[in-house]
Amino acid sequence: MQDTAPPTATGPESATPYTPTARTVPTRAKERASYDRELVHSILDAACLCHLGFVRDAAPVVLPTLYGRVGERLYVHGSTGSRPLRNARAAADPGLPVCLTVTHVDALVLARSAFHHSINYRSVVVHGTATTVTDPEERRIALDAIVDQAVPGRSRDARPANTKELAATAVIRLDLDEVSAKVRTGGPNDEPEDLTLPHWTGIVPLTRGYGSPVPAEDLDPAVGVPEYLRAL
Amino acid sequence: MQDTAPPTATGPESATPYTPTARTVPTRAKERASYDRELVHSILDAACLCHLGFVRDAAPVVLPTLYGRVGERLYVHGSTGSRPLRNARAAADPGLPVCLTVTHVDALVLARSAFHHSINYRSVVVHGTATTVTDPEERRIALDAIVDQAVPGRSRDARPANTKELAATAVIRLDLDEVSAKVRTGGPNDEPEDLTLPHWTGIVPLTRGYGSPVPAEDLDPAVGVPEYLRAL
Repeated sequence: MQDTAPPTATGPESATPYTPTARTVPTRAKERASYDRELVHSILDAACLCHLGFVRDAAPVVLPTLYGRVGERLYVHGSTGSRPLRNARAAADPGLPVCLTVTHVDALVLARSAFHHSINYRSVVVHGTATTVTDPEERRIALDAIVDQAVPGRSRDARPANTKELAATAVIRLDLDEVSAKVRTGGPNDEPEDLTLPHWTGIVPLTRGYGSPVPAEDLDPAVGVPEYLRAL
Repeated sequence: MQDTAPPTATGPESATPYTPTARTVPTRAKERASYDRELVHSILDAACLCHLGFVRDAAPVVLPTLYGRVGERLYVHGSTGSRPLRNARAAADPGLPVCLTVTHVDALVLARSAFHHSINYRSVVVHGTATTVTDPEERRIALDAIVDQAVPGRSRDARPANTKELAATAVIRLDLDEVSAKVRTGGPNDEPEDLTLPHWTGIVPLTRGYGSPVPAEDLDPAVGVPEYLRAL
């Protein structure tokens, strides 16, 4: 039977790494792979959008979607009519095989040789079986987590979903069991014989940030920008 | 037989939209979907990293990877030992079913209700069958395109791949046939009865940019930052 108990603060020790499996050990650049729980969490927590893959009619489908992390669980939501959610419900037991990937691009890496061009990045790939969340309390926690993943603290400053909205919202859960991170940092790795070539070499950092919040046209001007937005 | 003819400048008229198919018509938010060729190209050209999905052992796999666009063709490369490339070669005829997705997040959209929280984004989803590129000239064009996708003009200022590097590099091609874009813009769409709620509402733009190029430690100081990097 599906475990729909609400998540608790109690989880695996953060010092315990994820256990590598056949599909979380890369076939190349093995030195970039990590199973460190804190690293995985930090990469996940720095984003709010993932790319969720599933199989439909024997073909892969990859859709961008928001997510939220609560301890060792990831939550994704959507319309009850949307494809992955519908598939997850149709296959509620044993669930929908998915692959959820989160990637940050930190820099372009320009080597002297085209071959050694690369990017600095941080990514997490989660393999597993997504199951539909039916427990009302866990659904509430999940929906808050998805809002707070993008803007920490926001869920407490918004009208919670009402009965009609809840009925239209499917929530699926993916446990962080089969997980790996992959990180590249540093400069180009040129071949020794290329070091005297005349090409510029180095990295171009990519910057990301938040612009000033733009209030909706119909917002009462008396409502100031909340503290949790200033803290972004 | 596989078509490995080099791409040419001749392609479908940019005014001709892609033809919608069962899997490129979304089940929801249909008004956000587009099959406009120029829009699709502009979204693809504003990125260099995609999320590539394929099926392995009946389960989905989604990996971040660099790509390049040449007209109506996308190219992805990798080590000949890497999984998707190996799979594509193993299945060279009829090829490897893939889904290639590119997403830009432009803003966080904060509605008064949790339910109407969203993001402004631009995404492209390409379904199709990836085939291994074997024609040497097309491989050269593809590898240049992947370098130039990240930094336009860079391929002319780097040592091209040598025979050994070419032998270690697999290139796969995905034609832009079954393609859709999805775009959300604008502010929150709150319910009329929520307009008087006291919560801040609006959007928070996400900014992206390039930091100053950081030369490699072993770069001859006489080599200045090239014009194509200043133009980023």
